[in-house]
Amino acid sequence: MPPPATASTNRVPAGQAGPAVGEARASGGRIERDLLGNVTIPAGALWGVHTKRALENFPISGTSIGTFGELVQALVTVKQASARANFVLGYLDRTRADAIDAACRQILADPAYRDQFVVDAMQGGAGTSTNMNANEVIANVALVLMGKESGAYAVLHPNDHVNMAQSTNDVYPTALRLGMLQAVDPLLVALEGLRDALDEKARAFAGILKVGRTQLRDAVPMTLGQEFGAFRAAIAAEILNVKEHAAAFEQVNLGGTAIGTGLNTDPRYAPTVMAELRRLTGRPMVGSPDLIEATSDVGAFVLFSGVLKRLALKLSKMSSDLRLLSSGPRTGLGEIVLPAVQAGSSIMPGKVNPVIPEAVNQVAYLVAGHDMTITMCADGGQLQLNPFEPMIGYCLFTSIRILRAAIETLTTRCVSGIMADRERCQYLSDINIGIVTALVPVLGYDTCSAIARRALAENRKVTDLIVEEKLLSPQRLAQLLRPDALTTPNVGRQAG
Amino acid sequence: MPPPATASTNRVPAGQAGPAVGEARASGGRIERDLLGNVTIPAGALWGVHTKRALENFPISGTSIGTFGELVQALVTVKQASARANFVLGYLDRTRADAIDAACRQILADPAYRDQFVVDAMQGGAGTSTNMNANEVIANVALVLMGKESGAYAVLHPNDHVNMAQSTNDVYPTALRLGMLQAVDPLLVALEGLRDALDEKARAFAGILKVGRTQLRDAVPMTLGQEFGAFRAAIAAEILNVKEHAAAFEQVNLGGTAIGTGLNTDPRYAPTVMAELRRLTGRPMVGSPDLIEATSDVGAFVLFSGVLKRLALKLSKMSSDLRLLSSGPRTGLGEIVLPAVQAGSSIMPGKVNPVIPEAVNQVAYLVAGHDMTITMCADGGQLQLNPFEPMIGYCLFTSIRILRAAIETLTTRCVSGIMADRERCQYLSDINIGIVTALVPVLGYDTCSAIARRALAENRKVTDLIVEEKLLSPQRLAQLLRPDALTTPNVGRQAG
Amino acid sequence: MPPPATASTNRVPAGQAGPAVGEARASGGRIERDLLGNVTIPAGALWGVHTKRALENFPISGTSIGTFGELVQALVTVKQASARANFVLGYLDRTRADAIDAACRQILADPAYRDQFVVDAMQGGAGTSTNMNANEVIANVALVLMGKESGAYAVLHPNDHVNMAQSTNDVYPTALRLGMLQAVDPLLVALEGLRDALDEKARAFAGILKVGRTQLRDAVPMTLGQEFGAFRAAIAAEILNVKEHAAAFEQVNLGGTAIGTGLNTDPRYAPTVMAELRRLTGRPMVGSPDLIEATSDVGAFVLFSGVLKRLALKLSKMSSDLRLLSSGPRTGLGEIVLPAVQAGSSIMPGKVNPVIPEAVNQVAYLVAGHDMTITMCADGGQLQLNPFEPMIGYCLFTSIRILRAAIETLTTRCVSGIMADRERCQYLSDINIGIVTALVPVLGYDTCSAIARRALAENRKVTDLIVEEKLLSPQRLAQLLRPDALTTPNVGRQAG
Amino acid sequence: MPPPATASTNRVPAGQAGPAVGEARASGGRIERDLLGNVTIPAGALWGVHTKRALENFPISGTSIGTFGELVQALVTVKQASARANFVLGYLDRTRADAIDAACRQILADPAYRDQFVVDAMQGGAGTSTNMNANEVIANVALVLMGKESGAYAVLHPNDHVNMAQSTNDVYPTALRLGMLQAVDPLLVALEGLRDALDEKARAFAGILKVGRTQLRDAVPMTLGQEFGAFRAAIAAEILNVKEHAAAFEQVNLGGTAIGTGLNTDPRYAPTVMAELRRLTGRPMVGSPDLIEATSDVGAFVLFSGVLKRLALKLSKMSSDLRLLSSGPRTGLGEIVLPAVQAGSSIMPGKVNPVIPEAVNQVAYLVAGHDMTITMCADGGQLQLNPFEPMIGYCLFTSIRILRAAIETLTTRCVSGIMADRERCQYLSDINIGIVTALVPVLGYDTCSAIARRALAENRKVTDLIVEEKLLSPQRLAQLLRPDALTTPNVGRQAG
Repeated sequence: MPPPATASTNRVPAGQAGPAVGEARASGGRIERDLLGNVTIPAGALWGVHTKRALENFPISGTSIGTFGELVQALVTVKQASARANFVLGYLDRTRADAIDAACRQILADPAYRDQFVVDAMQGGAGTSTNMNANEVIANVALVLMGKESGAYAVLHPNDHVNMAQSTNDVYPTALRLGMLQAVDPLLVALEGLRDALDEKARAFAGILKVGRTQLRDAVPMTLGQEFGAFRAAIAAEILNVKEHAAAFEQVNLGGTAIGTGLNTDPRYAPTVMAELRRLTGRPMVGSPDLIEATSDVGAFVLFSGVLKRLALKLSKMSSDLRLLSSGPRTGLGEIVLPAVQAGSSIMPGKVNPVIPEAVNQVAYLVAGHDMTITMCADGGQLQLNPFEPMIGYCLFTSIRILRAAIETLTTRCVSGIMADRERCQYLSDINIGIVTALVPVLGYDTCSAIARRALAENRKVTDLIVEEKLLSPQRLAQLLRPDALTTPNVGRQAG
Repeated sequence: MPPPATASTNRVPAGQAGPAVGEARASGGRIERDLLGNVTIPAGALWGVHTKRALENFPISGTSIGTFGELVQALVTVKQASARANFVLGYLDRTRADAIDAACRQILADPAYRDQFVVDAMQGGAGTSTNMNANEVIANVALVLMGKESGAYAVLHPNDHVNMAQSTNDVYPTALRLGMLQAVDPLLVALEGLRDALDEKARAFAGILKVGRTQLRDAVPMTLGQEFGAFRAAIAAEILNVKEHAAAFEQVNLGGTAIGTGLNTDPRYAPTVMAELRRLTGRPMVGSPDLIEATSDVGAFVLFSGVLKRLALKLSKMSSDLRLLSSGPRTGLGEIVLPAVQAGSSIMPGKVNPVIPEAVNQVAYLVAGHDMTITMCADGGQLQLNPFEPMIGYCLFTSIRILRAAIETLTTRCVSGIMADRERCQYLSDINIGIVTALVPVLGYDTCSAIARRALAENRKVTDLIVEEKLLSPQRLAQLLRPDALTTPNVGRQAG
Repeated sequence: MPPPATASTNRVPAGQAGPAVGEARASGGRIERDLLGNVTIPAGALWGVHTKRALENFPISGTSIGTFGELVQALVTVKQASARANFVLGYLDRTRADAIDAACRQILADPAYRDQFVVDAMQGGAGTSTNMNANEVIANVALVLMGKESGAYAVLHPNDHVNMAQSTNDVYPTALRLGMLQAVDPLLVALEGLRDALDEKARAFAGILKVGRTQLRDAVPMTLGQEFGAFRAAIAAEILNVKEHAAAFEQVNLGGTAIGTGLNTDPRYAPTVMAELRRLTGRPMVGSPDLIEATSDVGAFVLFSGVLKRLALKLSKMSSDLRLLSSGPRTGLGEIVLPAVQAGSSIMPGKVNPVIPEAVNQVAYLVAGHDMTITMCADGGQLQLNPFEPMIGYCLFTSIRILRAAIETLTTRCVSGIMADRERCQYLSDINIGIVTALVPVLGYDTCSAIARRALAENRKVTDLIVEEKLLSPQRLAQLLRPDALTTPNVGRQAG
Repeated sequence: MPPPATASTNRVPAGQAGPAVGEARASGGRIERDLLGNVTIPAGALWGVHTKRALENFPISGTSIGTFGELVQALVTVKQASARANFVLGYLDRTRADAIDAACRQILADPAYRDQFVVDAMQGGAGTSTNMNANEVIANVALVLMGKESGAYAVLHPNDHVNMAQSTNDVYPTALRLGMLQAVDPLLVALEGLRDALDEKARAFAGILKVGRTQLRDAVPMTLGQEFGAFRAAIAAEILNVKEHAAAFEQVNLGGTAIGTGLNTDPRYAPTVMAELRRLTGRPMVGSPDLIEATSDVGAFVLFSGVLKRLALKLSKMSSDLRLLSSGPRTGLGEIVLPAVQAGSSIMPGKVNPVIPEAVNQVAYLVAGHDMTITMCADGGQLQLNPFEPMIGYCLFTSIRILRAAIETLTTRCVSGIMADRERCQYLSDINIGIVTALVPVLGYDTCSAIARRALAENRKVTDLIVEEKLLSPQRLAQLLRPDALTTPNVGRQAG
């Protein structure tokens, strides 16, 4: 039995246009009813009674689910896959299946439809309102494509046809996961940009010797290139980590319906819809091994939130370091100069602040806060469902979005314009007492300690004292303190 | 010396209208410059170059500071107070002072101006961009009121005049605190509504005996009225707690300028501006005793976040209880019935879910998450400033807003419509073994334990067994198990 | 009717000695039974069967409740008050009441008894095991005082007599609150010590001019005394805040028994036991206005955890500042020198690290983590009880304890030995460009900006340039840059 | 060049016994000195001056590092590997290398030595005190094995020989990771035990039909076996997740010394010591690709904390479910009976509480709190080091330990003794209205809705109404409502 539509992509074929959103808005209002009675749906709205109820019930955040484009795309894709599966298995006729399929492609192709996904992102009901909103919009777009009026559900019903063989409890968690996969892609692109910008700096700064610091105390030497190379390595590791963990979202509970038993589905439905989902998304989506467990399980979200938090903390640490290294201009460390991107003070002339890293720190802290929210939502799962997935989704989508934005602005408005203050680096290296550490293998720990103490007490340079005390010849000293000897394993090689 | 304007309120007097936002938009673009060079300000924008830089630097959350109306109002009020103080002290001439004053009143009176407060709420720079945005909008509104062009800063300068004697570092923290005070007022109103709705239920349910439960195990009796009375008492306590703690925001660091030393102010400035602030707000605003400490201090925010979290947890606990008590309809506790506000399932006919309490739980968890974010922001304060106050503000304003919304929907769409299932309450009371506890003072612990064990083993009622074993006469038993005896201190009174 | 014992203090009268712990250990084992059957109680144990069950059930943390001396003292005091109240009301005879009273005094007087409070601090059962442990120990100490064998519960029963008119659900929350009050006292003493040490430094450093820094950028001048004065002010504020909020623990739910209805108490019991509690503790303990609400309420713990977190964050910020200000010795800020308290490195000769502030930071972060744990515990309250109070108690007692320890070591091993590097402070002040801010009122913003830019570009001092450009005479400049002018409101005064 | 000792395991060869801990205690006190002066080391102490300083500096938690046996074992193993590598490379002579090697084997073999690891687990200094404590204990044990006095460091020095080619900054992070690997093993064993206990219950309860519940509302049927099977699946997934993520700890920064540049090591040292570490541990330990990044990096700890939190949340959700499912005994869900493990109430006869799951919930919340602490510690990393690893270690080791304990008590004292209340399950299934969902494919959504509404309104059974209205024959109804049809995908099969 052939699939319901020949198009293998989500492009809308010519001549099959659905209602333009503007046109829909211009059409007249209508009455719909549910178990609570009649409601008037405003003219042009593609959503229906269940969405209307949710609008009244959840005037919470002012952020609609349509704000999260990835979630809308994912949900519509799941609906499309379901319609195809139901057609293949003979439960949905070709006319309706084709109409649903075309409607989904239309919505996927035109971001303007996201304005129809109006329910508040912070909602009770375990995602039911989100699912209903999608069912209603798809049904009405399909009806218009079929030449019918919006609301003519006798022809094509949001519930009986668009939601056929589905429950919010399998569709919504599946859409959240698929949406995560889509949201992660641009995050990874942003991270790659940051990694490359850091890599460029690591190479540009390779020859600049500077003081390494531990516990904010002068320690042993390193190069500024090594410092930025470490940043680069950190981001490279995060890219891998995000990528690997996002793959957990490829396992979904679609087909489990209300509680994971698959009640009211054909046994062939689960594998069929999963195959359609793979075909539509090009991703290796698979069903969870235990659909009952999977229905209430939010472990993948909890762990991925931990992954985002780890990323956020790496970005925060790097941002704090950039602020420290650029502190000054006169009375701080001052080893690097961040690009000036705006005036820093309304009262202090010429002050320029590290505003971009500061924004990144704050974003990181909101991501960490979201992790706590997700933790509490996860703990609230009861028996066969976790009713708090909408908030989990809100937090994760928001975290990914602000991380991406923060990374992009960090890359383009800060890292790529960082300059080194070579002279300052050199000066601080010269006066650093910690350099004496490199002489321990030659002079011994006790002699080096004595030199260090005297240097500190007399405010002298370590090298001057060593030459003065004829512990080493200037030539030998210079050889031992060559930048490459100071910044790599040096023992044995020195002896040579 | 008289204050710069006779109006004691923030109403804009007739005939003194500033630029309507629409008109401003229709005017031509202009060039402004800062230390980084020239930028083009779009036609009609009342903001200027510093705002433009911030727009480019912080494309993070998509939520502008104008979204937080209380912050805008507070910031403009602080500017207004400063202008008046600078006039009184002779540093600002009457023309400019009056123009700034009128501009502030205009902005305060017309919420449409909030669209001009465009910088992202998630920003680096410790609030500088927010302060600059306000300075620029006020200057341009004032210029138009003076019959000048937007951008004619030679006449009235955002920095030199609007920001005179101020630094972001005292103005912004002050505005955050004043904004909190304004945001808390409607939260308290919402809480009072919830308290009253609970009170009504407590009185309506006063006569309904039911099972008290500890650790989810059947315990001793109580009335449903007592249960709702406890909810009422909890909310009443939160109202007091929020009110008391909000008062901490009346202490502000205005007058400290850059780091709290008051550099570049007249010694009379701090007391003068504080007096103006009191007059404009009608609130008992006072200066912090140590302005240097106060400049970097965010303790009041940290504690108030804890206060909001405590409130959130109370709401969450109540919501969880409402969900438990209404669980069923057949196989749960089923003692109360929540109003049906939307269909609950796309697959299960007739299912109605506790969607409103579920939304409240989730809001509570986001508030708790924000508390963690605020904690990390607070920890990031360094030396004379905490650069992360913008995120603190974002979290607190958002938490207050969603709490208020959640409380309102909980009150109107859930609590006020709750009905008791009297029969179910009575039935469960009758079969509750825990009722035997009330007989311990009469029959002794051992006898009661034996009865309890037998009742459980034989699936009998405690009362039946007691009569059967002739431990008490039915009349005596009835007397001992009168609802009022079961639900209040009963010893001694029984004996009488 | 007289109180059951004439002693108004908790001293054990001579000649009324109970079992020394050592003696008890030497006595023989015994059999006790509960609803699950018989168990053997080890020789010398003063606890009984319920404690034994708890030992088997909760081998979790290895930290016994006896570790928290304040909790033991509080719990025993509550038992003592109850026995007195039950005697006064005629429900407990004089012999038993006196024995319980004497046993409680003995336990309170001798910390060795804490070894008998053996159940794990991390336990299920809402504190029942802790309450039972106390009942059993008190009963057995009383029995020995009466000349009976341990375990002779027919004479004096842990449950019937020691626990008379009580439930874990009112006794345990009351004891937690009373224990908090006792734990807070030494915390306040520690804080006062820190405040005084900071005050001393503030005065000693009053004359040292230094660079103020915002966002890690050189800002305007201040004195080192002002910096430490701000630390002092922060701690002084925390002392007040802790004190004020601890007072909330004076309101307790004693008398509510199982669920707050006071079932199985005499109506006179609650006021009577509260009066006894006031007399024994010398604290103004009062009953909660709604005992049902109070039974499941943990709001006071949640808020106090927020108070401790705020304190922790202040300590952490101060510690981070101390680490920054002392960074170096050569390539950091280096304005202050922390006392060396241990060698800092096994590889770098002479390195000394800020180990004490680092310990304080970490303690602060554990306190913040405990706040999250308490948040989740609070959210887990259900219906008439919160079963997770044992973990709340564990976290709060631990937080208070480690905060106190951290504060004491910070005071004695760090703050009190801090020295200023006057020369470094002066040098950095001299080269600070931000000093130009103080000249804005005289030279104007634009001129000052130009000077600042030139100073930065040419690596010159601001003062040199001003003199060079003849903008101000050296005398006038010196006058304007007098330390007192730089570190206080200066406008107007300058003109004079 | 041969390895320094022939023994490939950590057993101490006969006739090579070091000081028994008791003997060491009996020996005389001694004087040691560091840069701060002389100290007296108590008689018998195997630690020295640096440990003594740390004891004085960090009287914080009262929990010594010796409490964490895995950390001690790991640290000693790292020291052993280093000594072997230093011998192989020719930097340490055979006598000293053998003595260190033997000392390490002795300490590893006898847990009594952990009493010598006395420094507080909450310490500043980035682990330096822990490293020094280990160096000193190993040196002194080795000295005694060599027939020398404790403290004869001229012969064998804690720093020059035991710590040769090492820095705290590479040794301590490496030991933390190796310690985690060792701590995780018994956690996995505990989890396997829980999984198996759940599996047994899943099979035992396979035939028991019951109500599935979503959002605490009656939903569609399932079997109790499926419910426990889902628990089993959850734990099985956690086992895999913990195992996979622990593997990240096999990558360590050993060989990087102070800041990751490997200063003062031979270039051959890093690969050599890693090979020794692999040989001693039998684990595939490898060096980090960027040792500079690795030195300050705590990402592996952050992520693993997230993994533990996910596990904790799964256990918490399961525990909450067990409490809900066993609620009652009369007025709750009552579908299962948890084993009674202790009396539940001091006031209510016969009450038995779910104390074991309650303990598990609380442990989970402490683990979540530790995750926040670790988050803040991670954020505190600065430049080339994170000084807060001791607290990270404290939190992770404690979390693993209490999780393991909680899992073991949950398995043995709760899950393995759970019994089903078959009759109650059947009764609730019979009255569940949600069963009508299974008839939707046959009767249609509208008919089913009407039946559901009537059943609820009239308090009737769905099945009775269907037969009464002759919608289906009793035989057909029974066929459709066969347990296997109700609890698996049923469409299509029904039609057959």
